[in-house]
Amino acid sequence: MNDDPTRPSGTALSRRKLLGLAGAATGGLVVGGVVGTTVARADTNDDSNTGTPDRSGDVVAFHGTHQAGIATAAQDRLLFASFDITSNRRSDVEELLRSWTEASVRLTAGAPVGPGAGLVAPPTDTGEAVGLSPARLTLTFGFGPSLFVDPSNGDRFGLARRRPAALVDIPPFARDELEPAVSGGDICVQACGDDPQVLFHAIRNLTRIGRGTVVLRWSQEGFGRTSSTTSKQTTPRNLMGFKDGTANIRAGSSTFDRDVWVASDDDPSWMRNGSYLVARRIRILIETWDRSSLDDQQLTIGRQRTSGAALGAKDEFDAVDLRAHGADGTLAIPADAHIRVANQDANKIHILRRGYNFTDGVDARTGQLDAGLFFLACQRDPRRQFIPLQARLAKQDALNEYIKHVGSAIFAIPPGVKTRDGYIGEGLFA
Amino acid sequence: MNDDPTRPSGTALSRRKLLGLAGAATGGLVVGGVVGTTVARADTNDDSNTGTPDRSGDVVAFHGTHQAGIATAAQDRLLFASFDITSNRRSDVEELLRSWTEASVRLTAGAPVGPGAGLVAPPTDTGEAVGLSPARLTLTFGFGPSLFVDPSNGDRFGLARRRPAALVDIPPFARDELEPAVSGGDICVQACGDDPQVLFHAIRNLTRIGRGTVVLRWSQEGFGRTSSTTSKQTTPRNLMGFKDGTANIRAGSSTFDRDVWVASDDDPSWMRNGSYLVARRIRILIETWDRSSLDDQQLTIGRQRTSGAALGAKDEFDAVDLRAHGADGTLAIPADAHIRVANQDANKIHILRRGYNFTDGVDARTGQLDAGLFFLACQRDPRRQFIPLQARLAKQDALNEYIKHVGSAIFAIPPGVKTRDGYIGEGLFA
Repeated sequence: MNDDPTRPSGTALSRRKLLGLAGAATGGLVVGGVVGTTVARADTNDDSNTGTPDRSGDVVAFHGTHQAGIATAAQDRLLFASFDITSNRRSDVEELLRSWTEASVRLTAGAPVGPGAGLVAPPTDTGEAVGLSPARLTLTFGFGPSLFVDPSNGDRFGLARRRPAALVDIPPFARDELEPAVSGGDICVQACGDDPQVLFHAIRNLTRIGRGTVVLRWSQEGFGRTSSTTSKQTTPRNLMGFKDGTANIRAGSSTFDRDVWVASDDDPSWMRNGSYLVARRIRILIETWDRSSLDDQQLTIGRQRTSGAALGAKDEFDAVDLRAHGADGTLAIPADAHIRVANQDANKIHILRRGYNFTDGVDARTGQLDAGLFFLACQRDPRRQFIPLQARLAKQDALNEYIKHVGSAIFAIPPGVKTRDGYIGEGLFA
Repeated sequence: MNDDPTRPSGTALSRRKLLGLAGAATGGLVVGGVVGTTVARADTNDDSNTGTPDRSGDVVAFHGTHQAGIATAAQDRLLFASFDITSNRRSDVEELLRSWTEASVRLTAGAPVGPGAGLVAPPTDTGEAVGLSPARLTLTFGFGPSLFVDPSNGDRFGLARRRPAALVDIPPFARDELEPAVSGGDICVQACGDDPQVLFHAIRNLTRIGRGTVVLRWSQEGFGRTSSTTSKQTTPRNLMGFKDGTANIRAGSSTFDRDVWVASDDDPSWMRNGSYLVARRIRILIETWDRSSLDDQQLTIGRQRTSGAALGAKDEFDAVDLRAHGADGTLAIPADAHIRVANQDANKIHILRRGYNFTDGVDARTGQLDAGLFFLACQRDPRRQFIPLQARLAKQDALNEYIKHVGSAIFAIPPGVKTRDGYIGEGLFA
C-alpha cells in the first residue's frame, strides 16, 4: 500500500463521504500516480470471483458477477462486522453503500481508502496498512432482515415490500443460548484476508466512513489455515482437533453453482447472483471436550481424529458409508454422530461452509476459554438449507453436548458490482 | 506436527502430569519414532536464543542460557496468558513447572504435548496443531509478585524471602484506568509464533496440564507483522498508523546485553540471565485519534506518519535531533511529543519493547472499537527502567490524550533451561 497523506493523489473518486470526512480542506484531486495504478490492477475484472487472485497474487478482484469472499479460496483470517443503521433516511443508506463500494475498490487493491487530505485535516486513511500487501482482502456486504423491517422502527426506509422471502428471521432452535449483543444487525461486512492488520484497517475505515449513518453492533475475529506455515493441501482443523471441511462443497462444482448462488429465475430479481449468509457464533465447551475419551470424541464426530477418515473408512476423502457396521454389529458411524446428522448428501441439503476458528480470551463468568467456531454458511435459500439442517442438528447431533450457539445472524448478500459506477445493493435501491 | 494419538510414541518423558491427565491407561512409552526425531531437533541447543531459527526455519530452540521469546526476532502473533495458582502447596507449583517445561520442549519443536493415550482415555494432546508447522513458537514463563507474597494468602509457598527486589509492584501512574480482570497474575506464559492456531494449541494444552494447580486469569491475543504478506525489512505500524519500534534496542547490541538481561553480579542469583517483563494493555481511543488532523498526530508522536522520520529529519533512521527548530523558531519535536518524552537516549533508560497490536471487538459500554497496543517490555531492573519512564510519560506525553492504560502486570522471567533435566524456575525452588 502506497500513501503520502500530505500529497493528494488518486483516481477521480466520488468525493462524497471521503472528503466530508477529510474536511475537504485541500485542493483538487489529481488523476494518476501510484494509487491510480494500483486501483487499475483490481479493475482487471475477474468476472466470476472464483477466488483466483490476479497476477500479483495478493489481490482478489472486487468487481464481478458475484461478490468476492464466497467462492474465493478461504483466506487465513476473518474480521466480521455487523452494523446498525442509526439514520432513518433511505438516501443516507444508499449514499453509504456508494461510499463503501468506492472505498472497497481501493482497499481490496491495497490502496488507501482515499486520497491525502493535507496537514490540517484528519488523514482520510488511518495509515496502519501502509506498506502492507493487499493480502487477498475481500469485503463482502450483506443486508439483515432489520434493514427491511426494523422491530422498533417499522418500514423506515420504504424497503419492506422488497424484502426477499428467503431472508427470513432465523427461528429459535433447541438449545440456542443466543446473546443479542453478538447477534443480528442491519448490514454486515465480512472482511477476509491473510493479514489481520489489513482486515482491521478495512473495517476501521469503513466504520469511519459510515459514521453518522451506522454504528458497529458487534464484530468477530477468526483464524484458519496460516498460509505461511501450513501446507495448503490439507483440510484445516477446528479447535476440537478434527479436520473440518472434508465434505464441504467446492467452488466451480455444479452443486456449488446450484445451491450457493441465487438463480436467474429466483425472486427478487435484485438478489440474482447473490446468496444468503448465515453466521453462528458456536462456542466449544473446551474443558468438557478435553475430558472426553478419544473414542467418545470420534464417535461424536463420526470421523477418526488423526486421519479425518469417516469411521469405517480408511482415508479422509473415502466415501462416507452411513450403513457400514463394525465387527460388533453396531453402526460404524453412530445414529447421532455429527457427520451422519449433518450429512449433506443424505439430507439432500448443501451449504457452503466458510467459517473460522476463534478465541476471545477467558470467559469472566466461568474462567474457561471462550473459543470455538464462527460458523459462516452461504446458500441459495436458507428456508430449504440452513434452517432445516440446523433444526435437525439441534435435536439429534451428539456434538450438542460440547457446543453452545451464542450468536446468530442472517444476511442477504446482493450480487457483485459489475461496472465502475455501480455500487453494492444498487438493485435494491433502484 | 505428527501425531497418532492411538499409538504411544515419543521420547522417554517424565510422565507425571502427562499420564495423569491421559489416565495412564495404555502401555509403556517407546523411545524414538517421528516425535523423538522432532524433539531432538529442538535439542540442537541454540545457547543464546538470539532468535535465529534452526535449520528447519520454523523451530526456535527452547533450551538456552536465556529463555526464548525475548531476544528472538518478533514473531507474527502473540497469545499471552496470565494464571492464578489455586493450590497452596509449593510442591504442586514445582511439579507444574517441570511438567510445563517438558511440554514446552515438545510444543516448540512442533510435537504433540505428550504421547498418545489410546482410545479409552482423553487424548493427551488436543490435536488442533496436527499438520501445522511449529511456526517459530516460543513459550516464555514469568513469576508475578503474588507468587512470592499473595495479598490474601501471605507467604503460602515459603518464597517471600526469595522475591527479587526488582520485582516490585508496579506503582499507580497518573491517568491509569486499570481493570483488575486484565491485570496481574501469579505466573505468565507468553506464547509467540507465526500461526494463531499453534499459539492457541500451546496455551490450551498448558492450561490443561495445569488444571488443579492454576486457572487462567486473563489472556491477550495480538498481531504484528505478517511474514507472508509483509516485507520483513520495514518497521511495523501500530494502529495509530505510525511506525512503531524505529528506536527500539536490537538483540546482539551491547545496550541490549546490558539493559535487558539480569547480570552475573545482580541479585538474586537465580534470576541471572533472566529479565523482568512489564505488560500494559494500552487501549487507543481510535475515534478520537481518527478525528485529529495529520499535523496534530505528527506533533503528538514527533514523527512523520508516512516515512517514520522524526520531525526535522528526513528518513526513518536518521538521528533524532531533539534541539532542532523549525522555520518559525519553535521546536521541531514539541516539548510534549511522545518521542521526546520517551526518548531512551535522553533519558538514559533503555527497554526492549516487544508488544503487539490488538483488537477485541466492540466495547459494549461505548460502542467503540476496543483496540490498541499490548505493550510488552523486557529489562534488567524495572525500578530504573520502565517505572521512571512511565512516570514521566504519564505526566508529560501528548499521546495521553489518545490512549488509556487498562491492564498492567509485571513478571520476573527466570533464565533459560540449559539441560534436558532442568526446568523453568529451578533456581527459585532449589
